[in-house]
Amino acid sequence: MTPKNITTLLEASWAASDSLLCVGLDPEPARFPGRYSGDSGSVFEFCRDIVDATHDLVCAFKPQIAYFAAVGAEGALERLIAHIRAVAPHVPLILDAKRGDIGPTAVQYAREAFDRYGADAVTVNPYLGYDTVEPFVERGSVFVLCRTSNPGSGDLQSLDVGGEPLYRRVARDLAQRFGQSGRVGLVVGATYPAELAVVREAVGTMPLLVPGIGAQGGDAASLAPALTPSGGVVVNSSRAVLYASDGADFADASRRVALETRDTLRAVRAA
Amino acid sequence: MTPKNITTLLEASWAASDSLLCVGLDPEPARFPGRYSGDSGSVFEFCRDIVDATHDLVCAFKPQIAYFAAVGAEGALERLIAHIRAVAPHVPLILDAKRGDIGPTAVQYAREAFDRYGADAVTVNPYLGYDTVEPFVERGSVFVLCRTSNPGSGDLQSLDVGGEPLYRRVARDLAQRFGQSGRVGLVVGATYPAELAVVREAVGTMPLLVPGIGAQGGDAASLAPALTPSGGVVVNSSRAVLYASDGADFADASRRVALETRDTLRAVRAA
Repeated sequence: MTPKNITTLLEASWAASDSLLCVGLDPEPARFPGRYSGDSGSVFEFCRDIVDATHDLVCAFKPQIAYFAAVGAEGALERLIAHIRAVAPHVPLILDAKRGDIGPTAVQYAREAFDRYGADAVTVNPYLGYDTVEPFVERGSVFVLCRTSNPGSGDLQSLDVGGEPLYRRVARDLAQRFGQSGRVGLVVGATYPAELAVVREAVGTMPLLVPGIGAQGGDAASLAPALTPSGGVVVNSSRAVLYASDGADFADASRRVALETRDTLRAVRAA
Repeated sequence: MTPKNITTLLEASWAASDSLLCVGLDPEPARFPGRYSGDSGSVFEFCRDIVDATHDLVCAFKPQIAYFAAVGAEGALERLIAHIRAVAPHVPLILDAKRGDIGPTAVQYAREAFDRYGADAVTVNPYLGYDTVEPFVERGSVFVLCRTSNPGSGDLQSLDVGGEPLYRRVARDLAQRFGQSGRVGLVVGATYPAELAVVREAVGTMPLLVPGIGAQGGDAASLAPALTPSGGVVVNSSRAVLYASDGADFADASRRVALETRDTLRAVRAA
């Protein structure tokens, strides 16, 4: 099978959806609304309802595998992905797994992401070195962690390496090594807008996966420097969309938040 | 439940086993010997036979979750861990998963490792920052990637940050932040002996998980500077032990390689 080219897939998706929004699927049974409240047996059903309510508003879906693995719900993840492919066949699917290991083990993680789950792209961690990214890029597409959205992300990522911060070095190295492939993007948090601009400057038009909007407090306007003519950014919102309401109206409430977020992002793009 | 203290567990295990060897459980159906050849339905049975043949020779077992996830064998991993607890209740179990994510997601990965699989320790990646290590240390023990055994590990890990390589900075930061907890160790590859000595000097007696012996070509003698009076190192061998023979004698062959490796490590310790 030809490895999926995430740049091509996203360009089609940004155009078709006119949306930069990615809905992150992070199912936490303790936060489930309405009739699913607290039920770890309803992981598939809850996520399915969110997908059904939002799939015409997004440029991508991003299941976070940790939430499935914590409750032994790999089967629910497989069913969910089959459902997404059925109702939204042109929406790229990014498996958020932040994998990273030495070569032979990276091959196994690539099989997990691309063969087992059929993801278009998977998130990976660059700390082990670029040879450990290769097995993923040979089999599919990746978003490599660059500048993450959490408070402590600077502990390593902001250290000065020869006159630039480590995250910028990672961005430049990846652009040089994989920029032409169309199969590599970067993860840069919306909570660090200045860094988002630095990364865009360093990597040309490579796609950026941008978490941190919504519950994490990132501001949509700060995305402006990261945009490209075709789109350029996949802006993830998970909790703000998923848990928009505790009640039986949760799917409608999720759609409302997704719509507002999509429109906010559209306005940034139009400005 | 009180979080497991991997330092205490290993000190007991090094003393009881007089072994520094950890057998890594990386089941690859394509390499399975004898009657299991090519059968991805025999992941549990193959690993069980290896555990039965080696558990009196090791200070730890280390299942590598990627190999299970690639073939949808989470159930086999659960059964395998239950088997290890039954036949070798005092042997610490390190889940090799190299997880790493922002806080709320790290909590889910910690649940996967400690609640679902009941691991004593899990390997984690420091690139996201030390706040992302906290959720693991609150719930159990970790080995944090420091200097990995692969050829490209220097891409980031050897970059100079203020007069020292990044991996040494990570080692010092972790020792300062978590050194007293007993719940944090570091991963340092045997393929980089000089770096192993540097890390030991930087972290006192914190336990080191050392992959790269055997198939990856690391030399046992180079471990000497990393030893401590109680042991100090968990030396992993996976492929050399697991795939010691293609034939029906594979379990005996695995035991023989494990025994030789244990004795080689004993000799280094006695020298």
